[in-house]
Amino acid sequence: MFSSRPAVHPVEAPPLTDAAENHPLRLRMKDVQGMPGTSGGLALRLVQFSFALSALCVMVTTNDYTSVTAFCYLVAAVSLQSLWSLSLAFVDAYALLVMRCLRNRPITFFFTLGDGIMSTLTFAGACSSAGITVLIGNDLGLCSENHCTSFETATAMAFLSWFAISISFMLNFWLLAAR
Amino acid sequence: MFSSRPAVHPVEAPPLTDAAENHPLRLRMKDVQGMPGTSGGLALRLVQFSFALSALCVMVTTNDYTSVTAFCYLVAAVSLQSLWSLSLAFVDAYALLVMRCLRNRPITFFFTLGDGIMSTLTFAGACSSAGITVLIGNDLGLCSENHCTSFETATAMAFLSWFAISISFMLNFWLLAAR
Repeated sequence: MFSSRPAVHPVEAPPLTDAAENHPLRLRMKDVQGMPGTSGGLALRLVQFSFALSALCVMVTTNDYTSVTAFCYLVAAVSLQSLWSLSLAFVDAYALLVMRCLRNRPITFFFTLGDGIMSTLTFAGACSSAGITVLIGNDLGLCSENHCTSFETATAMAFLSWFAISISFMLNFWLLAAR
Repeated sequence: MFSSRPAVHPVEAPPLTDAAENHPLRLRMKDVQGMPGTSGGLALRLVQFSFALSALCVMVTTNDYTSVTAFCYLVAAVSLQSLWSLSLAFVDAYALLVMRCLRNRPITFFFTLGDGIMSTLTFAGACSSAGITVLIGNDLGLCSENHCTSFETATAMAFLSWFAISISFMLNFWLLAAR
């Protein structure tokens, strides 16, 4: 009966190795650039901010954007997104400076929710502006009376900003689900 | 030396229990309605299809939608989405009938990618149409000469269809990441 006791050691050892092997994703996730608290994440936030700010500046310089609701909405959306991206750029920079990890669940959930809302708002603004710009330029042919180039540039910048924030959203959502 | 042989059994047993405990999410995921191969998933696909088809029918019944590029784009986007949703509704119905699981990684990746592309296209179409509808109705006040009610209804249906497909996308993406 008691002769089998030494075999207790291998019983305790395997689960540790097994647990490490069961989570290759969790170990790999820490290396993915673009997630909160990485230099890639900070770069992504700065790209989002700069494109959103460019869209805002280009749209505001046309003095007649207020006559179209969709352009006003785009200005509001990219203003909000530039504020959001700048705030998170500061958070990322702080996390990098103090070597702090931003990977706990409530923070990731907050970032995912914010990125999701912001990307939806910016994409909606960019699409509605694109619709109006195509209507003015192609369908009605009124580019001589309107600032078509500015509208197109602002729309393109908003699309680029949306693309950058949707990468952040995907990475955060993946991080949230993979935990 | 050979007296410890019977202890081989407990060595093999614990990792199995441990592996099951390490994946509480994977076990829970199977119960979430709305994922591929569930009755909730089938219902979601049918909701997407019906809203997309409604948007298509309402927009096509206005004879002047072809004069605006954004409305033509909306028609193309909801046509594609209704085809996609109907196809996946058939796949879900088949999976439910033969009690087959649709949870392997390539299938989930394909569904996530398709849902992501379709939801982006439909949302872009809905937003650009909303921009034009608000321009015609509010900014220019030309509703007496245009089918404003039809445009608004088609846009609303496209938004509802987008909302339903984005739920599918989120669930599939979560399933893909949680594996």
